[in-house]
Amino acid sequence: MAGAGLSDLAVAVSEAGGLGSIPCAMLTPEGMRKEIGSFRERTQGPLNVNFFCHPEPAPNPAAEQAWRKRLSVYYVELGLDSNATSAAPPRKPFDMAACEVVEELGPEVASFHFGLPSAELLDGGKRTRAKVLSTATTVEEAKWLEGQGCDAIIAQGLEAGGHRGTFLGSEVWAQVGTFALVPQIADAVQVPVIAAGGIGDARGLVAALALGASAVLMGTAYLFCPESTISPLYRQSLANVPDNGTGLTNVFSGRPARGIVNRIVREVGPISDLAPDFPSAAEAIAPLRAASEARGSDDLMQMWAGQAAPLGRPQRAADFTKRVAREALDLMLVPNLD
Amino acid sequence: MAGAGLSDLAVAVSEAGGLGSIPCAMLTPEGMRKEIGSFRERTQGPLNVNFFCHPEPAPNPAAEQAWRKRLSVYYVELGLDSNATSAAPPRKPFDMAACEVVEELGPEVASFHFGLPSAELLDGGKRTRAKVLSTATTVEEAKWLEGQGCDAIIAQGLEAGGHRGTFLGSEVWAQVGTFALVPQIADAVQVPVIAAGGIGDARGLVAALALGASAVLMGTAYLFCPESTISPLYRQSLANVPDNGTGLTNVFSGRPARGIVNRIVREVGPISDLAPDFPSAAEAIAPLRAASEARGSDDLMQMWAGQAAPLGRPQRAADFTKRVAREALDLMLVPNLD
Repeated sequence: MAGAGLSDLAVAVSEAGGLGSIPCAMLTPEGMRKEIGSFRERTQGPLNVNFFCHPEPAPNPAAEQAWRKRLSVYYVELGLDSNATSAAPPRKPFDMAACEVVEELGPEVASFHFGLPSAELLDGGKRTRAKVLSTATTVEEAKWLEGQGCDAIIAQGLEAGGHRGTFLGSEVWAQVGTFALVPQIADAVQVPVIAAGGIGDARGLVAALALGASAVLMGTAYLFCPESTISPLYRQSLANVPDNGTGLTNVFSGRPARGIVNRIVREVGPISDLAPDFPSAAEAIAPLRAASEARGSDDLMQMWAGQAAPLGRPQRAADFTKRVAREALDLMLVPNLD
Repeated sequence: MAGAGLSDLAVAVSEAGGLGSIPCAMLTPEGMRKEIGSFRERTQGPLNVNFFCHPEPAPNPAAEQAWRKRLSVYYVELGLDSNATSAAPPRKPFDMAACEVVEELGPEVASFHFGLPSAELLDGGKRTRAKVLSTATTVEEAKWLEGQGCDAIIAQGLEAGGHRGTFLGSEVWAQVGTFALVPQIADAVQVPVIAAGGIGDARGLVAALALGASAVLMGTAYLFCPESTISPLYRQSLANVPDNGTGLTNVFSGRPARGIVNRIVREVGPISDLAPDFPSAAEAIAPLRAASEARGSDDLMQMWAGQAAPLGRPQRAADFTKRVAREALDLMLVPNLD
C-alpha cells in the first residue's frame, strides 16, 4: 500500500486488534522514522513495516525514450513539457539505510514484496527479532521463501490490488486465484499462511481460514477508510468500480499490478511491451498522473484496487477491523466475545 | 465437461448424494438419449444435463484459411494433409432437437453455458419443470440471468477449468477470481449461488459456503476419477500440472478456456487474434490434437484443467463425493452424520 496509508491507518488497525502496517517503499529513512515514531507514540500495538526488494534496473535510455514517445500523445494533450519529471518519491528497494531504521526502531514484523532482500540485509532485520514475512504468488515461491527462513508466507491471489509479488518468473497469464492458491500453499509449507486478494469482509476472512490460512491481509478494503491517504478522485473512482473493472497492468511501473482500468490502461496496456523495467516506467507516467488529477480527471491516474473493491464501504479503520472480526466469529458460530 | 464424462460419472455422483451431470454439448440427440437412458436405468438420483448456447458463427473462409496457415507448421511437422479434418463431434448449441430430448426425458436440472438459449427454447425446457441454471462470470451477467428466470446462478471464478461462461463481453484480463466473485454475486441476486472455480476439496466447499454460495460445482477434481473419459495422456499431464501451469487460451476453440499450458498454447497463444470465432477454431486444431496424442505427446493436445488441479487425486467418483461432504461437515464442526 505504498503511497496509500501511513501511521494513522496503522495505529487504527493495531489499536483495534489487527496488525497495522506502514508501507515504506516510497519513504525516505527520515520518513520511516517519523511514521514509525508516530506509531509508537500513539499505540502499544504491534507494527509491521513493508518494503519492496526488487533489483534496481540498469539505466536504459533507449527504453526510456521509446516509452516517452509512446506517452507523448498524452503529454501533448495535457500541454506538458515532453521531458517533464515528477516530484513524486521513487520506489526504492530495502537497503542498508532502511535496514538501519529497522534495527533502530524494532518493528515486530517486517514484510517484503518481490522476494527477499540479500542475506546480509535480511540478517540485519532479523537481529531486531522482527518476524519476517514475504509474498508468494505460486507454490514454488512459497517453498523458496520458507527455505530462506520466512516466519510466515503471504499467499497473494490474483484478485489482490497493487503489485503482484511474483519474483520467480511466473507469467501474467499464469497468476493464480486466491481460492486455488491458499490451500496449495498451505499444503506445501509448514509456516503460517496469510491469505491476500479478494478478501473484503468477514465472509472472506472465514473462507480464507477454511482454505488453510491462519490470517488474512486486507488492503483495498482499507483504502475506503478516512485514514487512508488516497486522493478524493481515487476514492470516488474506487467507490464506483465494478467487479470486473480492474486489471493487471504494467503501464504505471513496469511490473504487473492490479488497478482500476481507466483510459490510459486501456489505450497503452493493460500490458505494454514498451514499459521499461520496474520501477522506471513510473518516471514518464508520473507527470501525466499528476496533471490528470489536477484537471479532475481519473483518465491517466494510477488507482490500485483489488477485485473485491465493490465490497468496500467508507468506515473508520478501527470500526471496520472490529466489525470484520466480530462478524467472522458470528459466521463461525463462535460465541460473541464482546 | 463436454467430452470428459458421460453417464458413468453422473451416476456415481448422484448415487453418492451429489447432482450428477451429463455434458451434452458434443452429443447428438441419439447420444443424449443413450446417456440419459443409461443414467435413469441405474439410479433414482437427480440429473443435470449441461448445454452450450453460443451463437453459431457465420462461415468465414478467410479467417479459417489464416488460421490453417498459422497452424501449418504443425501440420508439416506431423506429416498431416493441410486440409485434414477431424471425426471429432463439433460443439453444438442447444437447439430444438436437444430441447425435444429434454422434454421427453425430463432431467431435474438443465444448465447452460454462454448465457441462455432463446426464450422459445428455454420455455420448452421449462415445460419439463427442469430447474434452469446458467453461468455468470460477472455481477452483471448474474443479474441478467436472474432477470431471465434462472433458478440458480453458477458463479464461475477464473480458476475454473474449461470455457469461461462469459457472454456479456467481459475481457480476458477482466475475469474475476472465485474469492472475489462469489460474495459479490451472492449480494446481487436472490436466487441460490453455486460457486465454481478452484474448488478441489472439502476446504473449498466450506470456503465457498462462507463466501455466500449455497453449493459448489467441481469439475477438474472429477477428471481424476476412473469414471471420467479423458485419455491416459491427458490424465498423466493433469497429475503433474503445477498451480501456475494452466492459462486461459482461445487456441483450441476460439473462446477463452482454461487448460494446461503446453507447447501449442505457448507458441500460438495463450490468446491468438487469428483464432476464428467459437467454435470454428477447433476444426483446424482437431487433427493436430489427435495426431499429437497418437504419437504419445501432449504438445498439441487440448487439456482443460482448473487451477486447483494439483489438489486432485485418483479416487472413485462416489468415494470422492462422499469424502468431500464428510470432511466439509467435520471442518464446519457439524456432528458426523455417518
